[in-house]
Amino acid sequence: MSKSEFEELAGLIRDFAKTRDWEKFHTPKNLAMALVGEAGELVAEFQWLTPEESTKSALGPEQLEAIALEIADVQIYLSRLADVLGIDIPEVVRQKMKINENRF
Amino acid sequence: MSKSEFEELAGLIRDFAKTRDWEKFHTPKNLAMALVGEAGELVAEFQWLTPEESTKSALGPEQLEAIALEIADVQIYLSRLADVLGIDIPEVVRQKMKINENRF
Amino acid sequence: MSKSEFEELAGLIRDFAKTRDWEKFHTPKNLAMALVGEAGELVAEFQWLTPEESTKSALGPEQLEAIALEIADVQIYLSRLADVLGIDIPEVVRQKMKINENRF
Amino acid sequence: MSKSEFEELAGLIRDFAKTRDWEKFHTPKNLAMALVGEAGELVAEFQWLTPEESTKSALGPEQLEAIALEIADVQIYLSRLADVLGIDIPEVVRQKMKINENRF
Repeated sequence: MSKSEFEELAGLIRDFAKTRDWEKFHTPKNLAMALVGEAGELVAEFQWLTPEESTKSALGPEQLEAIALEIADVQIYLSRLADVLGIDIPEVVRQKMKINENRF
Repeated sequence: MSKSEFEELAGLIRDFAKTRDWEKFHTPKNLAMALVGEAGELVAEFQWLTPEESTKSALGPEQLEAIALEIADVQIYLSRLADVLGIDIPEVVRQKMKINENRF
Repeated sequence: MSKSEFEELAGLIRDFAKTRDWEKFHTPKNLAMALVGEAGELVAEFQWLTPEESTKSALGPEQLEAIALEIADVQIYLSRLADVLGIDIPEVVRQKMKINENRF
Repeated sequence: MSKSEFEELAGLIRDFAKTRDWEKFHTPKNLAMALVGEAGELVAEFQWLTPEESTKSALGPEQLEAIALEIADVQIYLSRLADVLGIDIPEVVRQKMKINENRF
């Protein structure tokens, strides 16, 4: 079976950290902090926009590019955190969506 | 070509929102807020732990399960945000990792 | 000279932590995490509201009370963090406002 | 009775916003977003530090100055948010500390 895209990205990020000897910094505590910092940068892209101005059709290409890179940063730390904890993201997303189906 | 796992999950979340008529709430601005709120809950799981206590081998199964569900919540809003903005997460992650390769 | 309100609140929170022997948990790193977690809960109060619905006149008394308590939680951790780092909040706010005056 | 320090700082920030005609941007929703963005920058100052490295005696003067300015940014948006909602921060902090006294 081929590797999933989630596994492929986690591998990329794992190798990146290993090459730079950054694994010692990548405790789950630290990675959760890095993730929320990036989430803060992502939210900052939208803070002074009206809901309408925040939509795809209203955003300019530069804004959209900046947002895309912030989304990437959040995904990178989320994938890395899941990786060091041995958590399978697609599996827990499906599990959580089932919980949500029953709740709402 | 088969759908990627990212596309599959985004589709699940899109259908969930559509069924509940929640699409009107899912502006990028609102989704970014929801995402950072979930990231805050994720970081709260680790706030009083030492870095050592935050690792996979030190966490108990209940803590790990709680963390996994918070990771799922962050992924759900991140995937949904990318979806409403037409952003391809694996592509922007690869793009950002190349930027990081050159930077560090 | 009488103690300022900032000093009075910091003292309340310091005594609270001391009584419970929580000082060992109150490293700046942990307090910053706790603060961003509370900020996430505060933002969650507003995430599905329109900007208009988020205003004082539109919010119901229960919503306003919930928001007030989240604001308190953020202030508590911010005051505690500044206290353990020996930072005088009113002084740095005045300093930062001067920087902002020159920048904008 | 003289104005409290909280009122004085809120007044400074209110005038700053008024002078720049930024009041229209300062909805509670937007201010909560700005606050969590600044909280994210504050947490980022600590993300790769050990708990020990994050303490006052271990931080260098430049790090401490950067942290102080991030604390100021969080306080500025927190004070502004409370101001536009008519919330008295010292009062709600005392109220919340009483709740905490009974809970813990």
